[in-house]
Amino acid sequence: MIVIGEKLNTSNRRIARAVVERDAAFIIAAAREQAEAGADYIDVNAGTLMEEEAQSLCWLVGTIQAEVDRPLCLDSADPMVLARAAECHRGEAMINSISLDAERLQGLLPLITSWPCRVVALCMPISGLPASAGDRVEAGAELAGRLTDAGVAPEKIYLDPLVQPVSVDAQAGVKILESLEGIRRRLPGVNIICGLSNISFGLPRRRLLNRSFLALCLSRGLDAAILDPTDERLMDMLLSTETLMGRDENCQSFIDAHLSGRFETEE
Amino acid sequence: MIVIGEKLNTSNRRIARAVVERDAAFIIAAAREQAEAGADYIDVNAGTLMEEEAQSLCWLVGTIQAEVDRPLCLDSADPMVLARAAECHRGEAMINSISLDAERLQGLLPLITSWPCRVVALCMPISGLPASAGDRVEAGAELAGRLTDAGVAPEKIYLDPLVQPVSVDAQAGVKILESLEGIRRRLPGVNIICGLSNISFGLPRRRLLNRSFLALCLSRGLDAAILDPTDERLMDMLLSTETLMGRDENCQSFIDAHLSGRFETEE
Repeated sequence: MIVIGEKLNTSNRRIARAVVERDAAFIIAAAREQAEAGADYIDVNAGTLMEEEAQSLCWLVGTIQAEVDRPLCLDSADPMVLARAAECHRGEAMINSISLDAERLQGLLPLITSWPCRVVALCMPISGLPASAGDRVEAGAELAGRLTDAGVAPEKIYLDPLVQPVSVDAQAGVKILESLEGIRRRLPGVNIICGLSNISFGLPRRRLLNRSFLALCLSRGLDAAILDPTDERLMDMLLSTETLMGRDENCQSFIDAHLSGRFETEE
Repeated sequence: MIVIGEKLNTSNRRIARAVVERDAAFIIAAAREQAEAGADYIDVNAGTLMEEEAQSLCWLVGTIQAEVDRPLCLDSADPMVLARAAECHRGEAMINSISLDAERLQGLLPLITSWPCRVVALCMPISGLPASAGDRVEAGAELAGRLTDAGVAPEKIYLDPLVQPVSVDAQAGVKILESLEGIRRRLPGVNIICGLSNISFGLPRRRLLNRSFLALCLSRGLDAAILDPTDERLMDMLLSTETLMGRDENCQSFIDAHLSGRFETEE
């Protein structure tokens, strides 16, 4: 599974301050920590900085890519900001995100079809937040269709079924699992991504809920997740679930992780 | 989910010694610890004691039931031993186990149809260990049919798809998940049970694998598991997965567990 480190988001006050003060050392350390913990991509989001967003995101991209050898996941609701951040990025970025919203779709299609990138595509109907798993699969299929019609290869698309908190809707987790199964069935060539920690919003013991939910999503074919790779128990759960799902030949990765002392100490 | 405490098994040397020496205090403490940790049933297995098995099992039943308010899961491969242990048991026991094997089936049917009990029914073809999920579902359906034909109510039947180690067959976990889905579809009124820890046999970090596997099985409709209820992280995983699967109205059990300090300390 592809791991996207979620920590460089200005909704966190310490990150926001470091971005505003252009504290490169702090940002590089936070990016490197995630890369060393297993992140394949580093997500960068400066959405809270409003009119400073585009400039801040470009600074983040340049600062991180000068020191940390990982592609970035460029995270903004504004197509113009994403276009500017993409210009600063070397190699194949992940664009987070596109949706069926006309302005967002039209604003991003030129970028996505002309740059080498992957794209997070939200399973959100034009009418607003999806209510059922069926709504999500429908919206995802329509958006994936628009993207492939425009020339985007299916394997570059990461459909996001939009995790809602189980504290708000007791069926929120089940709906995501059903969405994963529905997308996998209907669109076998397209990837699926989740923002994992939304599931536990508003509840105590969030990390426990996050790691349970990761196991459930992985067993339904999740391909990528935006998560905290420095959460060791979460990464242990990722590895053990991959092994249980038969994706670890002779359990070799699992045994190697044990022998290298990579697991946290306790059983 | 119904939790069956697995620890009173003479394959463990300390338990074997306590049974042989008729150390009631030790046995009662081990049973009570499991009950307080959340066991709904206490499994008792004296299979390693050979010709002493029946007498030892009866002693275990009487000793535990005198002090601990839980029904027992009577665990033996020998129908005669199970019949004798059932005679010693007050209330509705769980009989573990019956199979399509003619001797075992004929030996146990009179007991199961005349006593108030639940029964673990192995999804094992007469030809031996099942190879595929389909084999398991077939064998389970046939055995459940035999039992209901004899008058056993479907809700008293606990089909066991027979967990094999993922260290022996990388697809062992996937086969069980497919079996759970197949049984749930074909026999909606019958319960499903697993012996959880078999999945991790032969590997390091068994508890990590066991708790990942519990989450996966629970999300496919597992109704009961034979496990170690004193493993706090495993029980935390049980509770969080039930919450994620929408089986915890308003997340109340989860929040209550947090407020009561029932979770282990760390996030």
